[in-house]
Parts: sequence; structure tokens; C-alpha cells
Amino acid sequence: KAQQYGVTPQSVDFNDWYNEVVKKADLADNSPVAGAMVVKPYGSALWENIVRWLDTRFKATGHESLIFPTLIPMGFITKEADHVEGFAPELFTVSKIGTEELSEPYVLRPTSETIIGHMWAGWLNSYRDLPFLHYQWGSVFRAELRTKAFLRTSEFYWHEGHTAHADEAEARAEVRQQLDLYHEFCRNVLALPVVRGEKTASERFAGAVATYSIEGMMRDGKALQSGTSHYLGQNFSRAFDVKFQTREQREEYAHTTSWAISSRIIGAIIMTHGDDFGLIMPPNIAPIQVVVIPVGRKDNFDEMVAEGERLAAELRAQGLSVRVDKRDGVTNGFKYNDWELKGVPVRIELGPRDLEAGVVVVKNRNSEEKETLAREEAVSGMRARLDGIQAWLLERATSFMLDNTVTVDTYQEFQAAIEAGKWVRAFHCGDPESEKQIKDDTKATIRNIPLDDAEFFAEREEGGVCVHTGKPAAYGKRVIFGRQY
Amino acid sequence: KAQQYGVTPQSVDFNDWYNEVVKKADLADNSPVAGAMVVKPYGSALWENIVRWLDTRFKATGHESLIFPTLIPMGFITKEADHVEGFAPELFTVSKIGTEELSEPYVLRPTSETIIGHMWAGWLNSYRDLPFLHYQWGSVFRAELRTKAFLRTSEFYWHEGHTAHADEAEARAEVRQQLDLYHEFCRNVLALPVVRGEKTASERFAGAVATYSIEGMMRDGKALQSGTSHYLGQNFSRAFDVKFQTREQREEYAHTTSWAISSRIIGAIIMTHGDDFGLIMPPNIAPIQVVVIPVGRKDNFDEMVAEGERLAAELRAQGLSVRVDKRDGVTNGFKYNDWELKGVPVRIELGPRDLEAGVVVVKNRNSEEKETLAREEAVSGMRARLDGIQAWLLERATSFMLDNTVTVDTYQEFQAAIEAGKWVRAFHCGDPESEKQIKDDTKATIRNIPLDDAEFFAEREEGGVCVHTGKPAAYGKRVIFGRQY
Ligand SMILES: [Zn+2]
Ligand SMILES: [Zn+2]
Repeated sequence: KAQQYGVTPQSVDFNDWYNEVVKKADLADNSPVAGAMVVKPYGSALWENIVRWLDTRFKATGHESLIFPTLIPMGFITKEADHVEGFAPELFTVSKIGTEELSEPYVLRPTSETIIGHMWAGWLNSYRDLPFLHYQWGSVFRAELRTKAFLRTSEFYWHEGHTAHADEAEARAEVRQQLDLYHEFCRNVLALPVVRGEKTASERFAGAVATYSIEGMMRDGKALQSGTSHYLGQNFSRAFDVKFQTREQREEYAHTTSWAISSRIIGAIIMTHGDDFGLIMPPNIAPIQVVVIPVGRKDNFDEMVAEGERLAAELRAQGLSVRVDKRDGVTNGFKYNDWELKGVPVRIELGPRDLEAGVVVVKNRNSEEKETLAREEAVSGMRARLDGIQAWLLERATSFMLDNTVTVDTYQEFQAAIEAGKWVRAFHCGDPESEKQIKDDTKATIRNIPLDDAEFFAEREEGGVCVHTGKPAAYGKRVIFGRQY
Repeated sequence: KAQQYGVTPQSVDFNDWYNEVVKKADLADNSPVAGAMVVKPYGSALWENIVRWLDTRFKATGHESLIFPTLIPMGFITKEADHVEGFAPELFTVSKIGTEELSEPYVLRPTSETIIGHMWAGWLNSYRDLPFLHYQWGSVFRAELRTKAFLRTSEFYWHEGHTAHADEAEARAEVRQQLDLYHEFCRNVLALPVVRGEKTASERFAGAVATYSIEGMMRDGKALQSGTSHYLGQNFSRAFDVKFQTREQREEYAHTTSWAISSRIIGAIIMTHGDDFGLIMPPNIAPIQVVVIPVGRKDNFDEMVAEGERLAAELRAQGLSVRVDKRDGVTNGFKYNDWELKGVPVRIELGPRDLEAGVVVVKNRNSEEKETLAREEAVSGMRARLDGIQAWLLERATSFMLDNTVTVDTYQEFQAAIEAGKWVRAFHCGDPESEKQIKDDTKATIRNIPLDDAEFFAEREEGGVCVHTGKPAAYGKRVIFGRQY
């Protein structure tokens, strides 16, 4: 169905489109390990850019990285009651080391609150030791039946932030700070408009007092939870005895938080920005921002490559990431399609006649037009061009999200809108049974209770009745419903 | 035995000294997981600097990062006969996912040649696809009975490079290139003199055709293998069917390599440079290169801290990593000891009277003297001062290694030298049985057959007889024997 170098159009089959883009753009491949993927060089370069940006910001706000073991004693997981209930069905169990069968098995971490709580208990004495502002980069393990690269894999990659504070207010401020950082990162770096909000009780992280998320809309209308920040109260502190002496010499349990963005975010980039030609990489995170394609014939190809390298060097001097495509066994058409599929924001074609005329041909990934520009103009204007593409992506994604979000007050409208693949803004009574019924009826859930409606949704109503039960609305505002990944 | 803030002297008990330094300098802590450690912020910051330097160089030489699964199907490990024999006793087995008992268990990777070979088989078609220049950062798992932070832990951290080439010559050039890179890194960045050489057959990596190592001498005279680079021939290619069509349309198996430096290298830094006061961090890798200690009294402490921050800002503008110690609950003496123990290369003390006089007190970690310098002089001379400490460390370590290496021709001298904690340069016949007997007698092994004797050992002899068996010498040169970590 797909052409050799193309992909199935989004409108024909969004799922096929996604899987083909992931493979053909060389982001990831299937692995021989149940539910796990192999991240290939282009995907790994993208992930490294994501890691670098976030890591720099974590450090700038006083957070310190640590490395905790991948294994966790099974007994730790069962100490926090909600936590074990949430994770038990997904655990990988290590039962043997060398030839020794373990009487106390380990699990591969599904997340590290428990072992970090255990270590903190040993490190924490006085209020003077707080806050602990810790994080680690690594992988975690949660069994998945239906695998999809980046979105649902049994091993995935993330940072997990873990902080401990002397009081609730400071802990909650940390939770919000990290949520806001994620929002800024998505918006300014990935060109992803995301709605910040609190999760309802039934969607909370296993063991949390409050869970906040950022939610983005994919081009099929489904929501993707793209990051979370949790206030854990004293739940894990009590379970792991993370206590300290206060300034007033009392003993108290620490207030803890955790927060994460995972390799899922790559799925969000793909499904928010991609089109029928493949990926579109936001310039601010793109592993390759500009590709230079020397289009010579046999007798002058080497010369054009050398010229391409000179052009690339000038662009690199501006801090840009540039690739010169020197492959000689493939056609120019193949190269164009290949880099479009990989979503490189700008392509420069460099031919012998252009070279003589002092011009180059420039094409933005988000346009179908080619421009012929003076070489100097192409170079000096490149940063602004990339900024333009970045802004265009955010604008397009924001419009798409707003165009596909409807405000409804009846359950009939609600069902029709969800069925049409839209997000719905509606009042809800707060009853978990009603949430469950809605999910059974429509596969939609409350994505979150937006913290700042005004960012996207101008009108504001204080009251109302539940779109489902007709009971008085909870939360004091409309919540966002949608189907989700 | 140790003072509250000090450590057991090296001469009293080198092992206790090591363990206390690791804990008190906040590099790592024990974990509740058998044989695994927790790397704390100071250790993690050091590791991140190591990762960044190496990663930049890998990329600069055309290598691409990938992310392979942590789990490997058990059946993969058994495909390469020597490989399984080498690793079977150390494997962690995953036998259950969720509630499902696995009929085909997985192991936690002890190294990734097998799964990478499997993936390569799917990616490789033509000689045009080669070389594959791949690497990944991550952790690996090998059961350890006697754990020692950084040196022997059941989970440790590393990069593993894996490359595939069309012919043996190119593969062997890669093996040497990476070995030389490790040598350069140790020497110029970590101030570690290391001897490059080939391992004897009995010390080869499980499945390799040739293994090369860099070996450093710790301050107790033992050797630490600090990095390895392997030529794997076609062993793994055959086992995993990694073949390609040559330019001449024949089918051939790829020639592969692998290479690694692990978190062990942190053990080498500690044991090569440390002294009775604790660590000495080589300036070129130190997480904190300069610590500024405001030494005010209650009434002017804040002012001194502000002044310390100004001084730090000027040093940071030179690209230096600077910490201002603002703790107010501890004495200056405690702070001095604490930063000496952590091995920060330069300390600046900033007192109110000094401030008025326009001077600061500067102390190098490798000296017992304090210098009073004009503030500007301290700032403008800091980079040169750090370079001086870096050079001093390499010089000291090199002298120590040479002073503790002896050239012998009789087995009696050999045994005495090894017993005295030295390295021995001697001829050997190449018989593995003799190597084993020597190890049983003395606990010493052939560390390697130096590639470039002249770097450290000027005299060169072509022939000789085995120090153990009296048979004709193999290898055409003396080899290095020593006890090892
Ligand atoms: Zn309701
Ligand atoms: Zn011999």
C-alpha cells in the first residue's frame, strides 16, 4: 500500500502511518525482547537533545543527579499499598542470580519511589538536610501487551525526579515548578501546545495525593499524557520512614514529590507534527536542522560535495546542526524523500549551475515551494527561517487543538463529539462511578482539570451541572475529556 | 580508628581507606540490592563529566549512539560458545513478567554483543551499509560476591562500543583507535598513566580473537584494568548471521569489534590520586574545580558570602566549575577537611580582613601551604594553577608506576617483587599452564603485553627465556605481571 519510500497517508490509517514513519525514518526498530524496542541513531540523537535540554534546566534549579539500582527488592514494592496494587500486574521478576535461586526476588524498577525512599531514610536527619532535589536518567520496566514504539514499550526511557521537603507548601511548589517547566519545554522547544491540569482521583499515580499532567492532542484527535508531576504527601515517607528533626526538635515525615517525562514524548512529536510525507522535526530539538544535498553529476559530484561542506561549515559556525548528504548510490529524488520523511526542517540543494550563479535552492519541510536564494542570504537568514518553522508548528498544532475541542452541556453532544475524535470541555460531578460509566460508553476519560483555562479557553464559567449525571459540577470549572493513548 | 572527618591512612589499611573515602566524599553508598551501589551526587557529577568527554569524541569520530534493550533472550547468550561459558555464572535471570512464568527466560545483559549481532543481521545487506559504528551508554549486570563500590558491583555503568566492518584490517584499526582514545583520555583528562597492551589468550574477553587493555597502577601497587578494546573477528557474526554482499557480489561475514570503559575508572581515579586526606580530583575532570569558602563571623557572614559569589562569578566566566560553601551550621575547619576529602583541586578562603587588603588565601589540594595572593592574581592565574595541579598528578602517578615496576629474570626475584607489591617486567613462554601456575603461586597475572614499551620503558630486548619455565620467550618482548583488582 505504501510506496517504496513513502508512507501510508494519515487519513487512510493513522496507526499504519505512525508505525511506518517510526521505521522508515530510522527512529526505532522492533527487538527480540517482548515489548521492548531498539532506538536507532536518529531516534537516539533526538532523545539526547531532549535529555540535554531538560538536564541543564534541572541542574539550573538546584537538582542533583544520582544513579539508583535498576533492581528493587520485591518487598519494597509492597510497602505502599496503593503502589503495589498499581504496579503488580506489570512487574518483571528476577528470581535467579548465577545458579542461585533467590528466596527474596527482585523486580526491575517500574519507578523508583520505594528504593529512593529507603535510601533517603538513611541520609535524612535534620531539617538542615532538606530539601533533597534528586533525579536520575534511566530506563524502567512495565509489561505491555500491545506494543507501540515510544508510546507503549515494556522498557522505556525517562528521567524520574524525586524530591523531599520539610513542609507541604514547599513540596507543592516544586510539583508546580516542574509541571511548568514541562509546559515550557513542550511549548518552546518541541512546539507542542499542552494543557496543564490536575488528574481526577481515579487517574492518579499509584500512591500519590495529587497528580498533575500535561496533555497534548495528536493529529487523530486523541490525547497523549506527555508528562506528570506528583505530590506524594507523606505516603512514601511513612512507608519508608523518611523522617527528620524539625527546627523545633520534633520528628516529622518529609513531604515528597516525583515527576517525569519519558521517551513517550517522541511519540507526541511524531503525532503532533507529522504529515503524509513523514515527520516534521521542530527546529529547536531537531538532530539535523539543515540538510545540504549536492546535486552534481558523476564528473562534478566531488566538487559539489566539497562546496556543500563549505556551506555546512558556515551554517555550523552559527551553532546549527547540519548534515551533508554525500551518498552516491542513490538518486536525488530518493534523498529528497528520505530527508522529508525524517522531517529535517530545511533542505538546501546545491547544483553546478546554481553554484556558478551564486545561488542555492532552499526548501522548508512545511512548504511545498522551493526558493532560489543568493547563497549569502540563505546562510545569514537560516536561523530566522528555522525560528519561522518552529513558530509555524506551534501555531498549527494550537489551532488544531482548539479547532478539535468542543464545549458541550448534554451527554448526547458529548458522545457525538467524542465519536468524531474531538476533545470535549464539559462539567463533571466528580463521581468516579460516573467517570467509569463514561469511559465504558465512549472510551473517553477526563484528561485533566485545567489549571489555567485562559491559556487556551477564553470563556470561563464558575458553575454548571454534570454532563453525565446532571448533579452539581465539581472542580469549579469545565474539565477536558478525550480518548487517549 | 578514623577521626570523625578524616579517613584511615592508606598505609594502615588501603581497603578501609578506599571504602571510607567513597562514603565520606559522598561518591556512593551501599544499596539494599545485592552487590549494587547507589551513586550519589558527587559521584554522579564525576561520571557525567566522564561521559560527556568520551561521548563527544565518539561522535567526532563518526560513531552513533543507539539504545538496545536491557533484557536479552537467554538463548542468545548460548549461541557463541565461549561467550556463554564466560558469562553463565554471573547472569541475572528474569523468569516472570506480571503473573506469567516465562518458558523462555531473559537475562539482564552482561554485555550486548549478542542482541546487537541479532539486530545487525536485520540491518545489514551490502558493503555499502558498512561500517556500523555504534555505541550505547547504560548499565550491565554481572553477579559479584565481594562487592566494592565502582570496582566490583553487580550492576555497573559504562558505554559499550560495537562496530562492524567489511574487512579485518579496518576492524583492527578501529580496535586500536579506541584503545588509543582511552589512553589519551586517561592520560590527558584523568592524569592516569596507563600501559596499552594485548591480553594473553587466557585473559581474553569471552568470544574475542584479541583483547587489548589499558592498565594503571594503584597506590597499593595493584593493577587496575581501566578499559578494553576487542577484535571479535567473525565469531559473533557467524553466531548471529551478520553477513553482507561484498563489492564483488560475494557473501561475507562482518568483522566486529567491541570496546568499553566503565564506572570502574572512578576507582582508578580514587586509588591513583588519593592520599591520607582523601581524594584528589584531576582538575580536567573535577565536578568542582575551585571551592570558595567565606570565613566571616555572624555579623558579616552574609557579606562574605556575597563577595564569594562575586569571586565565583569571575572564575565561572573562565569556564571553571566553582562552588561557594555557604553552610552556616559548621565550622571553617570542618569545611576545609570536607573539601580536602572530596579532593577539590583549589580552595580559596575569603575573610573580612583579606577583603579589605584586596587579597585572598589560596590552597592547592596537593600542597600543604597556603598562599596569600592579590585577588586579581588569584583569578587570572586560576587556569594555569589548575593545569599545574593536573600536570603534577600525572607526573606523580607516572613516577610511582615506574618506581614500582621492576625488571627481573629469575622466578625468585619475580616472587619477591610481586610479594613487595610491585609490577614485574619479565619474559614469558606463552604457555597458559605456566600463567596459571604463576597465578596460583603469587596471585599475579600477565596484565598485558605492552604495545609501545618505549612510552614508559626505555630499554628494549628482543629475546630471552621465560622467567617461570626457562623456555624461549614468546611475544618478542617483556610482558607486565602484577596483582590486580
Ligand atoms: Zn458526573
Ligand atoms: Zn612460561
